[in-house]
Amino acid sequence: MKAWQATPPFGFDALRLIDLPRPTPGPRQVLIKVQAAALNYRDLEMATGTYQGQPQQAFTLLSDGAGQVVEVGAAVTRFSPGERVIGCFWQGWEAGRLSDSAALPLGGPLDGMLSEYVLLDERGVVPCPAHLSMEEAATLPCAALTAWQALVVEGQLKAGDWVLLQGTGGVSLFAFQFALLHGARVIVSSSQDDRLKRLAKLGATGLINYRSTAIWHEQVMAITDGYGVDHVLEVGGPRSFTQSLQSLHPSGQVNVIGYLGGHQGEINPLLILQRNARVRGISVGPRQSFESMNHAIEASGLRPMIDSMHDWLKLPGALAHLQSGRHFGKVVLRITAD
Amino acid sequence: MKAWQATPPFGFDALRLIDLPRPTPGPRQVLIKVQAAALNYRDLEMATGTYQGQPQQAFTLLSDGAGQVVEVGAAVTRFSPGERVIGCFWQGWEAGRLSDSAALPLGGPLDGMLSEYVLLDERGVVPCPAHLSMEEAATLPCAALTAWQALVVEGQLKAGDWVLLQGTGGVSLFAFQFALLHGARVIVSSSQDDRLKRLAKLGATGLINYRSTAIWHEQVMAITDGYGVDHVLEVGGPRSFTQSLQSLHPSGQVNVIGYLGGHQGEINPLLILQRNARVRGISVGPRQSFESMNHAIEASGLRPMIDSMHDWLKLPGALAHLQSGRHFGKVVLRITAD
Amino acid sequence: MKAWQATPPFGFDALRLIDLPRPTPGPRQVLIKVQAAALNYRDLEMATGTYQGQPQQAFTLLSDGAGQVVEVGAAVTRFSPGERVIGCFWQGWEAGRLSDSAALPLGGPLDGMLSEYVLLDERGVVPCPAHLSMEEAATLPCAALTAWQALVVEGQLKAGDWVLLQGTGGVSLFAFQFALLHGARVIVSSSQDDRLKRLAKLGATGLINYRSTAIWHEQVMAITDGYGVDHVLEVGGPRSFTQSLQSLHPSGQVNVIGYLGGHQGEINPLLILQRNARVRGISVGPRQSFESMNHAIEASGLRPMIDSMHDWLKLPGALAHLQSGRHFGKVVLRITAD
Amino acid sequence: MKAWQATPPFGFDALRLIDLPRPTPGPRQVLIKVQAAALNYRDLEMATGTYQGQPQQAFTLLSDGAGQVVEVGAAVTRFSPGERVIGCFWQGWEAGRLSDSAALPLGGPLDGMLSEYVLLDERGVVPCPAHLSMEEAATLPCAALTAWQALVVEGQLKAGDWVLLQGTGGVSLFAFQFALLHGARVIVSSSQDDRLKRLAKLGATGLINYRSTAIWHEQVMAITDGYGVDHVLEVGGPRSFTQSLQSLHPSGQVNVIGYLGGHQGEINPLLILQRNARVRGISVGPRQSFESMNHAIEASGLRPMIDSMHDWLKLPGALAHLQSGRHFGKVVLRITAD
Repeated sequence: MKAWQATPPFGFDALRLIDLPRPTPGPRQVLIKVQAAALNYRDLEMATGTYQGQPQQAFTLLSDGAGQVVEVGAAVTRFSPGERVIGCFWQGWEAGRLSDSAALPLGGPLDGMLSEYVLLDERGVVPCPAHLSMEEAATLPCAALTAWQALVVEGQLKAGDWVLLQGTGGVSLFAFQFALLHGARVIVSSSQDDRLKRLAKLGATGLINYRSTAIWHEQVMAITDGYGVDHVLEVGGPRSFTQSLQSLHPSGQVNVIGYLGGHQGEINPLLILQRNARVRGISVGPRQSFESMNHAIEASGLRPMIDSMHDWLKLPGALAHLQSGRHFGKVVLRITAD
Repeated sequence: MKAWQATPPFGFDALRLIDLPRPTPGPRQVLIKVQAAALNYRDLEMATGTYQGQPQQAFTLLSDGAGQVVEVGAAVTRFSPGERVIGCFWQGWEAGRLSDSAALPLGGPLDGMLSEYVLLDERGVVPCPAHLSMEEAATLPCAALTAWQALVVEGQLKAGDWVLLQGTGGVSLFAFQFALLHGARVIVSSSQDDRLKRLAKLGATGLINYRSTAIWHEQVMAITDGYGVDHVLEVGGPRSFTQSLQSLHPSGQVNVIGYLGGHQGEINPLLILQRNARVRGISVGPRQSFESMNHAIEASGLRPMIDSMHDWLKLPGALAHLQSGRHFGKVVLRITAD
Repeated sequence: MKAWQATPPFGFDALRLIDLPRPTPGPRQVLIKVQAAALNYRDLEMATGTYQGQPQQAFTLLSDGAGQVVEVGAAVTRFSPGERVIGCFWQGWEAGRLSDSAALPLGGPLDGMLSEYVLLDERGVVPCPAHLSMEEAATLPCAALTAWQALVVEGQLKAGDWVLLQGTGGVSLFAFQFALLHGARVIVSSSQDDRLKRLAKLGATGLINYRSTAIWHEQVMAITDGYGVDHVLEVGGPRSFTQSLQSLHPSGQVNVIGYLGGHQGEINPLLILQRNARVRGISVGPRQSFESMNHAIEASGLRPMIDSMHDWLKLPGALAHLQSGRHFGKVVLRITAD
Repeated sequence: MKAWQATPPFGFDALRLIDLPRPTPGPRQVLIKVQAAALNYRDLEMATGTYQGQPQQAFTLLSDGAGQVVEVGAAVTRFSPGERVIGCFWQGWEAGRLSDSAALPLGGPLDGMLSEYVLLDERGVVPCPAHLSMEEAATLPCAALTAWQALVVEGQLKAGDWVLLQGTGGVSLFAFQFALLHGARVIVSSSQDDRLKRLAKLGATGLINYRSTAIWHEQVMAITDGYGVDHVLEVGGPRSFTQSLQSLHPSGQVNVIGYLGGHQGEINPLLILQRNARVRGISVGPRQSFESMNHAIEASGLRPMIDSMHDWLKLPGALAHLQSGRHFGKVVLRITAD
């Protein structure tokens, strides 16, 4: 079988489509014929060797992927051959909070989903919502689950809550859909007015162009009539972190899910105290959260927003497209049979 | 000012429309000109003297009412004259769980809302959602807040959850609307097919006629494809309680909010153990839950279902209508100026 | 290797010490040389074929056991040969609430711990607290973890809380120790004054002889000065269930962990409503709870109360001792090498 | 009656012991004859006019105080004359999270406790634990409740947890006592070895001199055998904040309660993400938390650590003693009758 690997010293030139032996399931494992995969910013770092905690050896790329079970181990009870399934980013995190050192992510250090066949423990796999295509299903493991875990599982989002989303990356777009699904009100910020208009049509209540409005926390307060927001998905590093705190309703929540604005900077912890803020780091989520999210997706008929589909043989081009920042929605790869 | 009181020995014949002096606000009190009130089953018991814990003296009836602030005490910060407001059922329960002996309900033992003017502590009053009429707003304090507290505050309802509602009383209808607002799926039971049809049109996923299907927990399992429900609003006493437990998904929740099926009966606690059930009593909710509910109502434009409006001078007829069980939606009284 | 099995048609006469092949670990499995095991009431039902959900085929008995890892599979990361470990009752419940159909208990239907060697997934095993003997460690999986899960994990026990324990069974004794460890106050009920005296010496605040005081909920109120209790461990079936509710502080918690008083009976759900009670079924607990419990046991130097030790070859006698109800503390079996 | 006020332009020279009329209770108010008060760092800022959000007008100083009820309003149900009581820092925060704009603190902007008589709403007062002197009771409202709210109410502290305390200020010392009371393990840091020795004798498991060990997070990891801590009470500003995150067990909690190390600085939000940290601001706590804390204090017989007692007429000297940083335990004032 074929698989795309990142190999030392890493970089676009060190991506390799290699031949590997097709594996055989152990007692509680399932063999999946992968049909689609999706890109996350983390994959770009993994491919280029810039991830903090980069593996030192070659490994199969990509955290997100979906496909069909083709073979199951003798002790498998959760799946049968023929079922459409999705892999979990964290192999070994089933529920509760992430405190188990046994949990490891797919797509580095564990071999990832960009392979014709993938072997996973049945407890690291979830059923695919019935109405989704394989391409749509492949977008869920990281971006959608991060949004669900932050807002719904940890954040206990409810109708009427105010949610602030920074930018229009993959997590923000799923968070947008989940917030509307629960009757919450969404404020979106972006540097591009056309994207803001698009989200206004889809139901956003408040729009902020953070390029034209640098001190945007005041605009959040204006939109919410002085109330502030109940939830923030914080992706932007120290600079936006401070404004996120200033945008909060007392006892509001900030979910730290990314660090696009850099790693280091000035933060005033006094603001955390003054707002009685709840700040938490969210690293995707456990399998049981994935399953509850899929119930919601199935019940609502929600469809992921896809930017573009690419042949998996053209991985470097797809990564370059992600790197360009021109995408709106998930960038998906189709795994074509040889 | 006029006020309707229940007087010993109680009963329809002992309802009195009496004259009382118009009160004056203390430092943190507001004086409300009441414009609408709504009936709950509890009011029927209070009027007829059959409430468990019936007051022994005369008192002004009704827990639910809305009106306009006409005068405020010197230390009041939350309201100004002219604001449209709603009274809280529990005076003295602001947040958290009900464990404070200081909390007392309106409409017995505390004097209730069926009066031209009512004096309340500003902390026992909430602002009225802007898009609601006074008649609509008056329906919220007991029925709506019980549903919100059970499903949203205590139950942490999320999209994709299954909710089982018993009957089409006031709490069930609000629970129906709140469940849909959060993207949940609803199964409703009723003894009347026309009511089930009506709720199917409004978005119910599963319908059960508990008269024709006595062993209805099997039908719940069939509708949910063997999964069971995540939340039950239990109103029916011991008989339905057992079937509610049998309808549960493991670790599912049963909210005990009423006792229409009588007070005593056979319950098998082993079922609570086997289902890992979470069972809780819900007695309306605190003021902060009321405020978060109103945010949701305002953000969604939700409108309460009203069965009928009555002149408050015709209180006995309105109570008789409630007693008949022919209503679908809340029974509302208009407080007409003299 | 030798193993004790319950065989159809079950009963003391159908207990068999049989020879089985010694198993070999799969990739994520560990082979444990069992050194001690402990009896629970469930084992008595399993042995005698009276368990609700009794397996139909022969199986190795006992849920509780501890021993030494002697061999590990290639992919095992959590354990090494030589480590002292304890098996988890639920194989496949790692964290959160029990809602996963993949979870199965040891000692029926899964083969249990009463065997010279046992093969378990590394995720179904926890390290043994350093200061405990193997015999002490073997007592933890069911009784201790049920108490910990009910009071600490689900119940969020805190110093100053009132805890009501019914009887002096294994769960109650561990609950007693954990409650004192958290600075809580304990009321114990028993039919035997000598047991009550013993627990008074160990730190019980309130003592109730439920034989001489049939209406014991009034005594609970007297002991707590009218406050009621915050937590109940409910083991006694419908009759005690009603009194437990009557003993509660508003919003207090009842943990249903057993059914010694029979399965069916009169319960008044109105009491759940009036007390705003939180009632939940507790079926032992997940592995992460076991690990947090072991941290507490290790930090405090807590030692389980052991009634008696028996040679595992004398299993029937040990079961008969449990059945007699004369034990105070856990009944332990030593697995002697052949 | 006499009262100590801070008066513009503030500073030690602008402290005034003035005469005020003795107030009379409104319907739900109680009049308290204050017998003891205690100092917090906030009072020093209030006295010197350096508090962020300093009132512009004169006000009576001090948040912490205890005394005897001498008169109650007509509608008061919670207290009677003669009862020993303690004032709540937050007047108007009864339970749940702090999100209510109506809540205001004693000792600026609201008039505080350093007065012969104080008038408070009965809902802003709690009963005094029976075994405490008035001087001991006066230490509880801010320092003790902040520690209780952070570790117990929000943090759900349990036996076996690791707690890291920074310094030996009032909150840290109460946190130390509460942690031990729940069977938790405590690591304390200080710049003074004699204080560390003193806490070692009282039960601290780990000691860190942060002056001699600047990179103390490595020492935390060494003491906990690589596990990290479950709870931090963070008092030191940005510099210590980063090391606190580095000291955390995955999904551990950081409670931001102070800002002694300054307001602004470098914080890396990526650390919050990597540790799945839970960070929250804690501003003392609500009345119901105060009541549950008092249950714990009463049940355990816990006694606050008092550094020194001063005559209230010598307020400036007591404030100077607090400012010197030489105290270990609370600095208390006795309100002597004229």
